[in-house]
Amino acid sequence: MKIVIAPDSYKGSLSATEASKAIERGVRKALPDAETELVPAADGGEGTMDSLVAATNGRKVEVTVKGPLLEDVQAAYAILGDQITCVIEMASASGLCLIDQAELNPLITTSYGTGELIQKALNDGCRKFILAVGGSATNDGGVGMLQALGMKVFDEEGKCLGYGGAELSRISDINTEDFDSRIADSEFLIASDVQNPLVGPDGASRVFGPQKGATPDMVEMLDKALSSWADLVEIKTGIHLHDKPGAGAAGGIGGAFQAFFRAETKRGIDIVMEYTKLGEKLSGADCVFTGEGQIDYQTASGKTPMGVAQEAKKHGIPVFVLAGSIGTGIEVLYDHGITSVHSLVNAPMPLKEAMERGAELLEVSAEQVMRAFLAAIKNRG
Amino acid sequence: MKIVIAPDSYKGSLSATEASKAIERGVRKALPDAETELVPAADGGEGTMDSLVAATNGRKVEVTVKGPLLEDVQAAYAILGDQITCVIEMASASGLCLIDQAELNPLITTSYGTGELIQKALNDGCRKFILAVGGSATNDGGVGMLQALGMKVFDEEGKCLGYGGAELSRISDINTEDFDSRIADSEFLIASDVQNPLVGPDGASRVFGPQKGATPDMVEMLDKALSSWADLVEIKTGIHLHDKPGAGAAGGIGGAFQAFFRAETKRGIDIVMEYTKLGEKLSGADCVFTGEGQIDYQTASGKTPMGVAQEAKKHGIPVFVLAGSIGTGIEVLYDHGITSVHSLVNAPMPLKEAMERGAELLEVSAEQVMRAFLAAIKNRG
Repeated sequence: MKIVIAPDSYKGSLSATEASKAIERGVRKALPDAETELVPAADGGEGTMDSLVAATNGRKVEVTVKGPLLEDVQAAYAILGDQITCVIEMASASGLCLIDQAELNPLITTSYGTGELIQKALNDGCRKFILAVGGSATNDGGVGMLQALGMKVFDEEGKCLGYGGAELSRISDINTEDFDSRIADSEFLIASDVQNPLVGPDGASRVFGPQKGATPDMVEMLDKALSSWADLVEIKTGIHLHDKPGAGAAGGIGGAFQAFFRAETKRGIDIVMEYTKLGEKLSGADCVFTGEGQIDYQTASGKTPMGVAQEAKKHGIPVFVLAGSIGTGIEVLYDHGITSVHSLVNAPMPLKEAMERGAELLEVSAEQVMRAFLAAIKNRG
Repeated sequence: MKIVIAPDSYKGSLSATEASKAIERGVRKALPDAETELVPAADGGEGTMDSLVAATNGRKVEVTVKGPLLEDVQAAYAILGDQITCVIEMASASGLCLIDQAELNPLITTSYGTGELIQKALNDGCRKFILAVGGSATNDGGVGMLQALGMKVFDEEGKCLGYGGAELSRISDINTEDFDSRIADSEFLIASDVQNPLVGPDGASRVFGPQKGATPDMVEMLDKALSSWADLVEIKTGIHLHDKPGAGAAGGIGGAFQAFFRAETKRGIDIVMEYTKLGEKLSGADCVFTGEGQIDYQTASGKTPMGVAQEAKKHGIPVFVLAGSIGTGIEVLYDHGITSVHSLVNAPMPLKEAMERGAELLEVSAEQVMRAFLAAIKNRG
């Protein structure tokens, strides 16, 4: 019997690789001679790079770049097994996770470090990029990234602008002469589910600004600043970013990719499934285990278990989801191919305990679901 | 598809009947046209009376009797559908649950009220009795019960003894002239898993006295008192209760049944399965759901899920256990017929919340396990 094990990470508890190994142990307890195929997965969020590295036998490169507040941070990018594709998680250089809650300030946070990661990977010979843009702390339209890659941005007096979203309100001109020419030879695949435009009521500042620390006044200021930037981009390139779907991703970096890069956007889970060859691995499988920390109706919008299920459904394979926490509305998942949803929490306990015992609990849970599955098969021959 | 649903109660949260209905709702969500057979079960503990009432279309009779401290308590016995069998839970009249922790004192607690329940049922015409003796607060050798039924017990001076375990240290004679003569015409089935003798290191006082509030000194006193009582019983009846297996059940009431009643002892779960006709109901079933609040290795010693599983195993039917809390060592359950064990707790949460949301959580859990089971069957045809 062939079992595919393709969980996401269990945030705060287990990486996707750790989770897949724990599930494998449980499955083998129920069926010692099971043929297992481990596919640590991700949906474009945290763990995407690790998943693709594991799938392609790639490697991680650790480097020091400028963080969102221009401090030095240890970040990483990955070079996949093909030696030409680089994976970058924007959060690694420009993420919310790098700043204390009290210091969040999208007026000054910059995507500069993300540009540095791209530049370093270009130096390594990479010409294909996968950019997972979730979890950014920035609202700078991706201008910081462009600055890192050699673009000059000026105010009305011809002085170079500084960094951060607020500076864009004074933007007057750009100069792309020194913009890294290797960008033109490179392909960018943006892993993003965000369809928001750059500005306006559904724009980056209004929708995502507050979670990055923007007060209502700051939201207004940032929206106007991005609008000034978009006006200038339109003058320079003819591309009207203002209401372009996806331009508002990750503080507007989506727009920067649309205007200055050969970029295409896909759902994170679709990219991961493509690179991990999940479809091929599912062929001939008897069931699939997937899961992540929290499962609820939102899982239907491009989360890993959903993507895995949609693929498994094509093959008619049952999909068992193991979650730390099961929220409301999971019925909507059934139509997408999810067979059943089980919690790894096996007694009343606090979140901290569930997280600390994640591997053990996941193993037990996988074993029990596998046993139930096997019983049905044995019973019916 | 036929599904048998035979849970115990989930202590502090759901009665067995409530639990079986919640599981049924979950099963029907997964399979709307499922043929379900509800068998609210019990293992001789709390809920045994309710289970047998439900199974036989019997009725409960509420009465006032003397509690363990001789206070008035509202207790109940049941008359089963055959109109001749009475079910009594000793805890209803003489239980730990009737006394505040601070007032526990096995020197003075008496089984008198249990005798009153028997007498009232005799008045109702009952001549068959099922006595679930778990949860007693007493260590009086069942003498209180005998007193309620008309037996006289005297000290050396020929004065009637009072009530409670300590009085037995002064026992010198008994007179059975007024002992209810209907007892001789009645059969008693004692639901008990306890094999302890009346006295000695494994006796009632030493093993169960402390949980009823006995200090080490009290344990010694009670063991000697029961020994005096056993000596007298041997003189009067020729029956040597001291080391008789089961005589130590429920503070020694087991011994009183062995000496003065036509009594037989069986595991509670076996009695419940017999009266609920679980074996017959399992015939042709595709799977069974059972469960209770807590599942662990101890479940193997005569708890409801174990009994249900042992019966289902004869029929080759998968058994799914839904528990509030899953402890360690559940592997020992597999050999007894339990297929898999699943928690109804579907996220980190405190015990109180799990109990309050018991019905809802049990329904969801049953639905998910049923969905996993069905997927396997569909997949293999």
